[in-house]
Amino acid sequence: MASAPRFQFDIAATDGKARTGTIRMQRGDIRTPAFMPVGTAATVKAMKPEAVRATGADIILGNTYHLMLRPGAERMAKLGGLHKFMNWHRPILTDSGGYQVMSLSDLRKLTEEGVEFRSHIDGSKHMLTPERSMEIQRLLGSDIVMAFDECPRADQPRDVIASSMEMSMRWAKRSRDAFDAGEAHAAGAALFGIQQGALDEELRGQSAEALREIGFDGYAIGGLAVGEGQEAMFATLDFAPGQLPEDRPRYLMGVGKPDDLVGAVERGVDMFDCVLPSRSGRNGQAFTWNGPLNLRNARFAEDLAPLDERCACPTCGTYSRAYLHHLVKSQEILGAVLMTEHNIGFYQQLMQAMRDAIGEGRFAAFAADFQRDYLGAQ
Amino acid sequence: MASAPRFQFDIAATDGKARTGTIRMQRGDIRTPAFMPVGTAATVKAMKPEAVRATGADIILGNTYHLMLRPGAERMAKLGGLHKFMNWHRPILTDSGGYQVMSLSDLRKLTEEGVEFRSHIDGSKHMLTPERSMEIQRLLGSDIVMAFDECPRADQPRDVIASSMEMSMRWAKRSRDAFDAGEAHAAGAALFGIQQGALDEELRGQSAEALREIGFDGYAIGGLAVGEGQEAMFATLDFAPGQLPEDRPRYLMGVGKPDDLVGAVERGVDMFDCVLPSRSGRNGQAFTWNGPLNLRNARFAEDLAPLDERCACPTCGTYSRAYLHHLVKSQEILGAVLMTEHNIGFYQQLMQAMRDAIGEGRFAAFAADFQRDYLGAQ
Ligand SMILES: [Zn+2]
Ligand SMILES: [Zn+2]
Repeated sequence: MASAPRFQFDIAATDGKARTGTIRMQRGDIRTPAFMPVGTAATVKAMKPEAVRATGADIILGNTYHLMLRPGAERMAKLGGLHKFMNWHRPILTDSGGYQVMSLSDLRKLTEEGVEFRSHIDGSKHMLTPERSMEIQRLLGSDIVMAFDECPRADQPRDVIASSMEMSMRWAKRSRDAFDAGEAHAAGAALFGIQQGALDEELRGQSAEALREIGFDGYAIGGLAVGEGQEAMFATLDFAPGQLPEDRPRYLMGVGKPDDLVGAVERGVDMFDCVLPSRSGRNGQAFTWNGPLNLRNARFAEDLAPLDERCACPTCGTYSRAYLHHLVKSQEILGAVLMTEHNIGFYQQLMQAMRDAIGEGRFAAFAADFQRDYLGAQ
Repeated sequence: MASAPRFQFDIAATDGKARTGTIRMQRGDIRTPAFMPVGTAATVKAMKPEAVRATGADIILGNTYHLMLRPGAERMAKLGGLHKFMNWHRPILTDSGGYQVMSLSDLRKLTEEGVEFRSHIDGSKHMLTPERSMEIQRLLGSDIVMAFDECPRADQPRDVIASSMEMSMRWAKRSRDAFDAGEAHAAGAALFGIQQGALDEELRGQSAEALREIGFDGYAIGGLAVGEGQEAMFATLDFAPGQLPEDRPRYLMGVGKPDDLVGAVERGVDMFDCVLPSRSGRNGQAFTWNGPLNLRNARFAEDLAPLDERCACPTCGTYSRAYLHHLVKSQEILGAVLMTEHNIGFYQQLMQAMRDAIGEGRFAAFAADFQRDYLGAQ
């Protein structure tokens, strides 16, 4: 443990633009391409942390916005930090709070200084700045800290996108300085910058250049998966990862569906997070190698097969579609538990299959097989 | 497995009126006094079956009323029975459906033949009779089948209570005959009769006599825990268990709070079921040796202690009251999961403590200590 590096990214193999490797950190290794289950409010919803780990997850994501409001950052520090609080002792990446402040809170006021807003829980007034975001992530005990940025809607005029991106780059520098000032925490944690610029190659190039100049441990591609559609996202991913340093992890924030992940890995992305597998699981949707299944459908009422014949998760090893259909229809908590465990398990098996395919130089064939089975069945 | 008896009750020790022993059945042994977690809709809510077993539960209860409506008895048989469906391979006791028909369904019509009602789920029309109840419990694959009875409100006139009890005894005979007609199932399962008569010693005596004449594997005390209060319930339990055969298990249906269980065991009861520990868990209430705790209370926000220092459950071994407070306040599914696991675990530890105390001839001292700690703290 003591001999583990603060942050080290080793690329073991590449196959086209796809890469597989390992990020080494003090709380454990992260195999890439990596999918990070989302643990919004100090819990990956409906799963115990040991079940999350058993799916193969090396790292989870925590939401600064939610945790700063409840239980609160200072209180979390007093309680020993997020890892101890929720009993997850491997790496945690925390977002900066910027995205969720804009999407969830009330009465936002955006200035060069930061964002003033009211809590969606109790209406209390808060201010998030790059400096406060770094402080909160430090108080939580985050392993991978995200720079504080603004994520504008992708359908706005180019000059709006440009000036927002430029402010985010100034905030990235303030984030870097504030992170570095947290000395003991900074010595064991990593800081990622976030590229903005929506779908515009030139703006994304300027953003990447600004981030490189500041220097980060890893680089996120922000401002995608905000409603632009898969085609536009892939078109942006055809150039965006290549604008970022090749020897650093590239993290596509908030993505996505299984076919999004395969297409993004093909284009050089190393890390992902998304609420989709857990949220869909709670809503009765299961992801499988043959496409998604809606377990509410009456055709599953007497189906004794598992969700997915090829899935190695505990749900598929034990329970029938008929039972899961019954639980989902009956709105039983166990339905949410078992469906989430399958979906997170399926995502991790998908990531492992991609890592294997890249390592063995057969990613193109893997992606073709995946698309045939996954999309062909829909 | 093949050499296990159909149903055998061995009393290992008695201490006053309290008894401890073992019921041996083909799917496994049941240590008494036993608490049966309620698995209403083919799931002990918010728990995986392996977690239920890990608490020390030897048997769970299934609800005929819920299961006949969803997924349906014939469908359950087609799917291989309740044990396979929900992955619980130890004994299951099923109630007769009578109590829940009267409390949950719409448009009930009660006759000597049985009860006609409409489903609370979809309004469909159904008929429950002693014969149909036995058939449903057989289709579910129940190990301990309950006779079909009527449970009137305890505050009704004596003649209403009396004639209801008398009809329940005629239904008990019809249940016995219908159970025995299910030959292969009857050869591996047990049938319990249910004593009625509300709070009236003479009526309870007549009911017990009628049941003894028919003959059952075990005897339930019905018609209690329906709002009469603990004092009236204990007053009835001062005579009711003694009216039933001494060499057969006595099952107090739908009870209860931890102090109800201790008082009932003291009065000669061997088996219990109740939704309280699971329902309370989902609502943020934890049972402890020092009384119940409401985890919504703000005083737990920074409390790093476990729910109960003496509890051996996984929740208490891992999580703080502060974390559980956070999960409960955030309405997280994991809160319901961890709280339920603690409460069911606490109930099983309470039953084990009572079994140990009876076996060692120190039940009175145990009960006094329990009451001092549990009630004294309230
Ligand atoms: Zn699975
Ligand atoms: Zn506990």
